Amino acid sequence: MPSLKNDIFIKTLLKQPVDRTPVWMMRQAGRYLPEYRKVREQAGSFLDLCTNPELACEVTLQPLRRYGFDAAILFSDILTVPDAMGLGLYFSENEGPKFTNPVRTAADVDKLPIPDPENELRYVMDAVRLIRKNLQGSVPLIGFSGSPWTLATYMVEGGSSKSFQKVKAMMYNEPKLMHVMLDKLAQSVASYLNAQIAAGAQAVMLFDTWGGMLSTEDYSEFSLYYAKQVRALLNTQVDGQQIPTILFTKGGGLWLELMADAGYDALGLDWQTDMQQARARVGNKVALQGNMDPVALYANPEVITEKVKTVLAKYGQGSGHVFNLGHGILPDINPEHVKAMVDAVRQYSPAYHLS
Amino acid sequence: MPSLKNDIFIKTLLKQPVDRTPVWMMRQAGRYLPEYRKVREQAGSFLDLCTNPELACEVTLQPLRRYGFDAAILFSDILTVPDAMGLGLYFSENEGPKFTNPVRTAADVDKLPIPDPENELRYVMDAVRLIRKNLQGSVPLIGFSGSPWTLATYMVEGGSSKSFQKVKAMMYNEPKLMHVMLDKLAQSVASYLNAQIAAGAQAVMLFDTWGGMLSTEDYSEFSLYYAKQVRALLNTQVDGQQIPTILFTKGGGLWLELMADAGYDALGLDWQTDMQQARARVGNKVALQGNMDPVALYANPEVITEKVKTVLAKYGQGSGHVFNLGHGILPDINPEHVKAMVDAVRQYSPAYHLS
Repeated sequence: MPSLKNDIFIKTLLKQPVDRTPVWMMRQAGRYLPEYRKVREQAGSFLDLCTNPELACEVTLQPLRRYGFDAAILFSDILTVPDAMGLGLYFSENEGPKFTNPVRTAADVDKLPIPDPENELRYVMDAVRLIRKNLQGSVPLIGFSGSPWTLATYMVEGGSSKSFQKVKAMMYNEPKLMHVMLDKLAQSVASYLNAQIAAGAQAVMLFDTWGGMLSTEDYSEFSLYYAKQVRALLNTQVDGQQIPTILFTKGGGLWLELMADAGYDALGLDWQTDMQQARARVGNKVALQGNMDPVALYANPEVITEKVKTVLAKYGQGSGHVFNLGHGILPDINPEHVKAMVDAVRQYSPAYHLS
Repeated sequence: MPSLKNDIFIKTLLKQPVDRTPVWMMRQAGRYLPEYRKVREQAGSFLDLCTNPELACEVTLQPLRRYGFDAAILFSDILTVPDAMGLGLYFSENEGPKFTNPVRTAADVDKLPIPDPENELRYVMDAVRLIRKNLQGSVPLIGFSGSPWTLATYMVEGGSSKSFQKVKAMMYNEPKLMHVMLDKLAQSVASYLNAQIAAGAQAVMLFDTWGGMLSTEDYSEFSLYYAKQVRALLNTQVDGQQIPTILFTKGGGLWLELMADAGYDALGLDWQTDMQQARARVGNKVALQGNMDPVALYANPEVITEKVKTVLAKYGQGSGHVFNLGHGILPDINPEHVKAMVDAVRQYSPAYHLS
């Protein structure tokens, strides 16, 4: 493997000095790009695209070609792990992801296997290897997984949810059963991320999309606890290189102090959380990633530039800030607006890295 | 008007000593009650029910008869004000509230009137008068309105939204226009709440349902600023009685210190916010209302009892806590589970009020 030509993303996560703020976007390989929509059409369904390593590699690389982002992120879905556990993932036209076999009973939980990533999730590992090879050391590749809690919400609800009634009913009425399930998920997620690392992922990110729907005590017990378990099981030293880890809880701004103690190198911030206050709260424990409002990309390029400047200024001087949106980019954003964002980070961030 | 027989809700908002914690529920007059569904059917549409003072009065009183809540809340919709501004409110079967004439341009904003509550919103004032009369001083009546920002989201989007793309695009691209609109809304909301107070409301609550979708700086500038404007315009002294005021921002847990300085007597808390930490953060500035997870009402009655005990313990000793859910009750909750919650508040709260 060639050594990294651009390692400012990795260095920033480890809070080492860099000369500008690295930038990438959650869901950067996605529908807002015409070249993505073309490949998606060619692939057939969304799942067909996820399970085809060549096409997954192609869409992973597209945003790098267009914008020169400082990191690539594996194109995949957060629900590959439950699918590999036998739940039967499919996508319905307007309602998003669904499972043929949701988890509702103790018997359902009991029969959940810990998948072997190089077997049931081989298509993901093949994609990681192919992307890594094709990147040719240009920028690092980020691997990722949904968090145990977030996966559990889809597995019990049988798909997306608004109020999370079924999964919370299980959590409230049968906490022990929920813990058994989350423990299996923590093992599965750690094994999945370790396999991605072994296949070539140079950083990993845990997406806790629905941890923010919990009360503070339930977040600690049912979401963060298992994010810590996952972290404890990760192999983060590969050939003398450290694999940085990022934890993102959407709606987790109230809990940054707790999250900063979970063992991850960096925290992802949603756009509601103030970057300046966040930095003051977590101190030197972790780097921070984020957090422009994804909806600000609908604004005019001049406004986008101002919003970028605000986020950069709020983080302030020194390393430890990866510029990103506060959530995934929306599907109908004008690609030129993304360019305005990236250009602004390039133009205005060096001033924050003068030693 | 007879004097209040049960004034513990009012006293608690003003942090005066009481002998137990008062309890009511957001959306307590609602679809989870069979007696509500019967009146709703009789009325015709949801809007027919809102605009019929006799039936609105009836459904307001139903949950009091069943559970003996410590406060009544006017049965109405948060979008009555924009409707009175000429936007043409209607409800589509599965997509919720919609406006025939959304606000998209400077000309649209320019022609928005400040409604006269006793004229265009007479049906609300008649309902307030009728409810107040029928309560016969048993418990206080809460009046309410949506916050200027929350109303603006529906007015610009034309209905409910997930990403708030249109209203945020206006906010980012045309902040001055957005401020003109929010200023008109603050005047309209204050006038509407003052009319409710004049008609008999004994406390008022501002629902900022979508303030939590904003970044910290946008929340301050576009949501909280106008909640303060509303508060400054309220007439909160009626016949020597103080009318307590409550501000609720769903997703506002990050901003409690800012909210506590907005001039309201109490803050509503969503269920994500930890009640104990919230009390420590706001000190003696405000009372707190909330904040059991509404989804916990799907749990078994024994679990509900434990969750109530947790919320009471987290607030701790002394006056200043109104027990409530962290958001509105969901439509398919078992009414017996609500009884378990109310019973638990009655049974376990007096221990926190021994002087």
